[in-house]
Amino acid sequence: VNKKYLITGHSGFVGRYLIGHILKREPDADILGLDLHDSGIPRIREKAVNLLQKDDVQNIVRDFGPDFLIHLASFSSVAFSWSNPIDSFANNTNIFLTLLEAVRGGFPECRILSIGSSEEYGIVGKDEIPLTEESPLRPASPYAVARVAQEHLSSVYTRGYGLHIVCTRSFNHIGPGQTDQFFVSSMVKKFVQFQKGIIPELTVGNLDVVRDFLDVRDVVVAYYDLLQRGAKGEVYNICSGEGILLSDFVELIKKVTGVSPPIVGDNSLKRPVENRIVVGSNSKITARTGWKRTYTLEQSISDIYNHYLGILH
Amino acid sequence: VNKKYLITGHSGFVGRYLIGHILKREPDADILGLDLHDSGIPRIREKAVNLLQKDDVQNIVRDFGPDFLIHLASFSSVAFSWSNPIDSFANNTNIFLTLLEAVRGGFPECRILSIGSSEEYGIVGKDEIPLTEESPLRPASPYAVARVAQEHLSSVYTRGYGLHIVCTRSFNHIGPGQTDQFFVSSMVKKFVQFQKGIIPELTVGNLDVVRDFLDVRDVVVAYYDLLQRGAKGEVYNICSGEGILLSDFVELIKKVTGVSPPIVGDNSLKRPVENRIVVGSNSKITARTGWKRTYTLEQSISDIYNHYLGILH
Repeated sequence: VNKKYLITGHSGFVGRYLIGHILKREPDADILGLDLHDSGIPRIREKAVNLLQKDDVQNIVRDFGPDFLIHLASFSSVAFSWSNPIDSFANNTNIFLTLLEAVRGGFPECRILSIGSSEEYGIVGKDEIPLTEESPLRPASPYAVARVAQEHLSSVYTRGYGLHIVCTRSFNHIGPGQTDQFFVSSMVKKFVQFQKGIIPELTVGNLDVVRDFLDVRDVVVAYYDLLQRGAKGEVYNICSGEGILLSDFVELIKKVTGVSPPIVGDNSLKRPVENRIVVGSNSKITARTGWKRTYTLEQSISDIYNHYLGILH
Repeated sequence: VNKKYLITGHSGFVGRYLIGHILKREPDADILGLDLHDSGIPRIREKAVNLLQKDDVQNIVRDFGPDFLIHLASFSSVAFSWSNPIDSFANNTNIFLTLLEAVRGGFPECRILSIGSSEEYGIVGKDEIPLTEESPLRPASPYAVARVAQEHLSSVYTRGYGLHIVCTRSFNHIGPGQTDQFFVSSMVKKFVQFQKGIIPELTVGNLDVVRDFLDVRDVVVAYYDLLQRGAKGEVYNICSGEGILLSDFVELIKKVTGVSPPIVGDNSLKRPVENRIVVGSNSKITARTGWKRTYTLEQSISDIYNHYLGILH
């Protein structure tokens, strides 16, 4: 029997890779993607919908009858949440609640993956690294509050209504195709731009920061594994488990690409408040599902580099 | 100068007592009450508004220019939140966020009191009693999730935008005028009904439960004190600090009223999952403001009894 996968925000960076992975594992899977606009991704069905429209969501879920729901749609920018807290909250917590209600009404057996964020941990001390799922949540932005509320709702729906929900706290993703609003994508793009003579030098913000990066292709395997085998009501960090100083990351890009541009600091790129170190532990998902990271940072950088070599002229 | 108090849900049980206390302390206070309907409470201004209507809220706040905002309006029924999670969440968290945005836009000096609930603590162990503000939050109902999100938003708005918000976690209230959906009010009402020959006996649910009851007249003094002197960004339990077994409470009603009705158990009145013991510590508010409980349970019972004697025929 072909399983039915409902994926919100399917046409985004993670969604496209996830669809590819599901179809690799289950070539006959019936996938319905929901996004604001159709994207033309092959081998799936799509529906354009605004998830704030409760009745539309209810009807779509009822007509499709999902076995699995992966909720990738979100307003995931912390900066946007500070400038537009109401819209950020509605498009995170409220749309998730709408989806839960739609599933609860007719498909209580549906397995749901709730995507959360390392932002839920908030400001963390150096002695709390690596962050485990037991670390306290101290959400420090409107976005983070919305994510914690989503996780709490998942817990309540699991225990109170018996739904099968598994939650993630996802750390930084990288990989070919990510927009250049993110550090690694932006940095590798600049290396290619320098190599092609488009820019004379690289400007960088604060590089004295440690982050945990995981390739999107490992992320989607983790999501798939959690959907199939994650424990109901549990939360799992999705991360590499290793921290890297951003200045070391830049050196690694030099090594992998063989390009050595001049680098200049730009204080305007620094954010006012941020954690110096964010590194997670991935022991819990590994213990539960056997999932392991397979992409090295070098491999990710190389693939992102080749991606930009192909599209920048 | 007359201070301006904006009170949402002002015509409810707590609101009416709060208005009385503010006017006792500041006879010239300028109070604007917001509720779905006008209530005719004297000496204040009222405006009928649905707090879900963001533009209306924005306009009202801008026109009034509050020095203080006390947000009492809520869908505070846990049972309702289980049957209507979307409406419960919207009418708790989202309306609070709308108010915060309205204040942030024009009145960053406004002092805000965010009313939370002991429900935020969720299922608690006996060894965690009394609950302090440091006790972990494990929200176990949609209502509780909404209250925790409200508290997290308060923290973010205090630290991120510099607003002056003080939060409460309020335990059980009692007092004359409370609806009989609540244990104490319902029980005393039944005593009066028995006394007047309206009912032949009392039916009761599970009385093997310990709760912390505080008279509403002490509650509103605590709220007023926190508005004036609560620490920005902090959370305070509002409770008596003393637990009482519900069966002992029934004995106390007998003693105070001199009425001894036959009492029969009714299992249908028992709720499936509930904490056996919920008792809070009020040390933090006392240390900060000097607030102390002044109404004994006997006094509360006597006043509720006389209230029902006056209105039941």
